[in-house]
Amino acid sequence: MLYIDGLECSLYDREVFQELRAGQLACVTPTLAFWENATETMDEIGRWRDLERENADLIRIARTADDIEQAHRDGRTAILLGTQNSSPIEDRIRFLELFHDMGLRVMQLTYNNQNAIGGSCYEPEDSGLSRFGREVVLEMNRLGMVVDLSHVGERTGLDAIRASERPVAVTHANPRSLYDHPRNKGDELLKALAAGDGMLGLATYRNISGPWAGSREEWCDMVRRTVDLIGIDHVGIGTDLSRKSGQPELQWMRKGRWTRTEQRGASLSGTQTKAPPITWMESTADFPALAQCLSEHAGFDEDEVAKIMGGNWLRFYRQVLKPA
Amino acid sequence: MLYIDGLECSLYDREVFQELRAGQLACVTPTLAFWENATETMDEIGRWRDLERENADLIRIARTADDIEQAHRDGRTAILLGTQNSSPIEDRIRFLELFHDMGLRVMQLTYNNQNAIGGSCYEPEDSGLSRFGREVVLEMNRLGMVVDLSHVGERTGLDAIRASERPVAVTHANPRSLYDHPRNKGDELLKALAAGDGMLGLATYRNISGPWAGSREEWCDMVRRTVDLIGIDHVGIGTDLSRKSGQPELQWMRKGRWTRTEQRGASLSGTQTKAPPITWMESTADFPALAQCLSEHAGFDEDEVAKIMGGNWLRFYRQVLKPA
Repeated sequence: MLYIDGLECSLYDREVFQELRAGQLACVTPTLAFWENATETMDEIGRWRDLERENADLIRIARTADDIEQAHRDGRTAILLGTQNSSPIEDRIRFLELFHDMGLRVMQLTYNNQNAIGGSCYEPEDSGLSRFGREVVLEMNRLGMVVDLSHVGERTGLDAIRASERPVAVTHANPRSLYDHPRNKGDELLKALAAGDGMLGLATYRNISGPWAGSREEWCDMVRRTVDLIGIDHVGIGTDLSRKSGQPELQWMRKGRWTRTEQRGASLSGTQTKAPPITWMESTADFPALAQCLSEHAGFDEDEVAKIMGGNWLRFYRQVLKPA
Repeated sequence: MLYIDGLECSLYDREVFQELRAGQLACVTPTLAFWENATETMDEIGRWRDLERENADLIRIARTADDIEQAHRDGRTAILLGTQNSSPIEDRIRFLELFHDMGLRVMQLTYNNQNAIGGSCYEPEDSGLSRFGREVVLEMNRLGMVVDLSHVGERTGLDAIRASERPVAVTHANPRSLYDHPRNKGDELLKALAAGDGMLGLATYRNISGPWAGSREEWCDMVRRTVDLIGIDHVGIGTDLSRKSGQPELQWMRKGRWTRTEQRGASLSGTQTKAPPITWMESTADFPALAQCLSEHAGFDEDEVAKIMGGNWLRFYRQVLKPA
């Protein structure tokens, strides 16, 4: 069985890479940018090249689905480079091709704020996908990049699903009908996502899991309810884990350079500190236990567990990461 | 016979590409940056990707020596992307790898001004290659990029030749012993360059050709004298042609963003306007006539003409563009 985590915002070091191996992860997508511009994102890509060289026994940057399978066979975790904002392209359509050259494979259209592409899940009014946004989606289709809609506004997200010529993803969110939170996704969007052969990565992030965060078993119940909603082929994991990420990183995510005031992010209670990770998913070392729980508690058969734990992501990557 | 122009600063459009084909050029290196930073250079690379798509019947961006030969066989001119400054890497060693990913293959260490790498040919005092400069040369060696020393100061250039683990190039300059000009290169440097199997691209730029610019025959006499100086295997062409480039481009080259005063660049007479091109090399369409003159006037045999007109550059690219 092959495990994939569709999205993390951990601060990676050798210890966190060892946790990836302890969890037998075949692939994980880290977050290289929240608000970073082109040059700053290149700094991050360059930093990842060094991490790859220094930890070649544990990880390998992947550019294709084949790379992921090869890494898995070699006992390495593939790193699929991603950003949670389109800030790296600085509103230039041409930069998508260049960042693709540098290995970027996943880009969220907006982070928490409206940008030139569309609205975010936290904006009071969502414009829908802009003219530029449409161009970006089609260019990402052409290049073979994952269009990520997780923090994107509902209307913009639906527009993007319809505009896209290939399947797209919500790498880290949960169904809003199971836990009502602006970061979660409505049934209409999720059904349109699945109809287009897209993927939903369910998040173990406390703030957007609500009551399902209580135990591994309860969270697996949420997986079952989600599979009932959009089908077994479109559900995966996107933990949103933030190992070793602390208060400075939380402030950067929430405030970037756009505000002087406190921002609560996904914390409905308005807490200004980081929500503690769910106790049964403190790191990816807990992936095998999650697979076991999906089987023993939630009653998925082996084939279904394999799909949820990584098989669906791999099929999706195989479809989406090939240049058109 | 395969023709290569080691360096141009033309403003390329379809007409200039047609001139490349009229001249039967197998490869040319355009200038994507004089003072541009990382983001601005990415704008240029992106623009070249579009030029390539729009003129696929005439040109093709090359990443390897094989690409150059393939383009030649297909009746296309290979474009080897280059910059005349290290400004694109913004003093980050990691950016070399990323620009290499984007297709950059030639980088001059300094343009007309001192930078973090070393001194330029116009500085009153040349520091020699800095500690960072040494790292840059070795990283370019590792990646397989052409280290260009044309506008670099003499001391820094000699240091770079000694520091480099692979052959390096002076893509566009002439021997100072044949025409005394700060942009031209002394015999000590040229002999060290050749001893390291490096390349000198002789320039048809009026300001640095002096009396040899008078006629095609006289310029071919300069080629003969240069071959006598450093050997038949280390001499090629680097016209420094600037087709369609006008006064705004000249001002950008000379003044960038570093000065408020007039700068004369390579004009020893202090002229503030562009030197007219040599009449017998107004565009690359004149390459075949140059080959003929090397044979008929300067008395090179067919094998020697082939080396000077492109064979030497191709051998050099074959050695240098392979990752170490």
